[in-house]
Amino acid sequence: MPDDAAVSRETPADPPPWFRVHLFACTNRRPDGHRRGSCAARGSEGLRDYMKARAKEMGLPGIRVNSAGCLDRCEFGPVIVIYPEGVWYRATTREDIDEILATHVRDGGRVPRLMLTEKDVPPG
Amino acid sequence: MPDDAAVSRETPADPPPWFRVHLFACTNRRPDGHRRGSCAARGSEGLRDYMKARAKEMGLPGIRVNSAGCLDRCEFGPVIVIYPEGVWYRATTREDIDEILATHVRDGGRVPRLMLTEKDVPPG
Repeated sequence: MPDDAAVSRETPADPPPWFRVHLFACTNRRPDGHRRGSCAARGSEGLRDYMKARAKEMGLPGIRVNSAGCLDRCEFGPVIVIYPEGVWYRATTREDIDEILATHVRDGGRVPRLMLTEKDVPPG
Repeated sequence: MPDDAAVSRETPADPPPWFRVHLFACTNRRPDGHRRGSCAARGSEGLRDYMKARAKEMGLPGIRVNSAGCLDRCEFGPVIVIYPEGVWYRATTREDIDEILATHVRDGGRVPRLMLTEKDVPPG
């Protein structure tokens, strides 16, 4: 099957996902008083630490919680984004984190009250 | 259609992707001599800066290049992962970055010589 072989040489299938749930929490910090604010100034570092510990406690398989630089939706922070689905959340409390981990990560659902949508566009 | 309405209330469709290409470059740094090494010790910060500048120069639409904390595939670094497709690369030179941006990001292809696969598992 030379055609198949040619296709397969040029476009190998992607490897399986390395992490089932890859979660990035913005921990960018801007100087106090910056017009856009920043996720770290809104407490994202502590929330990320809590999320890492809580995910471990819950024994969630295949999840990785990472810090990330500025995700550029600062005004809606502290923001997290979960891949591969590309769903964004604003999580400001530990209860928010608990709900995202239980409902989204563990149960495969969504937490609409915390989700960012296409209407959450940074000004200017 | 009450059934559809009920379903739609409980599981709203996810918003469209905020970034078409969301690229994370590990910039974690471990102390010199650490058994696993680290991406920053292998030059990932300079490569991330280059990637940001180059993506801008190329005028690639919808791309975001972010730094990330430890992605836990240190031995194969400097590593980057591109979502939503979840494809991982080892990029060690500016030429590697150029090829990933042109072939993967701009043209939607893959760069097999630089891709990590499921066989690239950190030891122990």
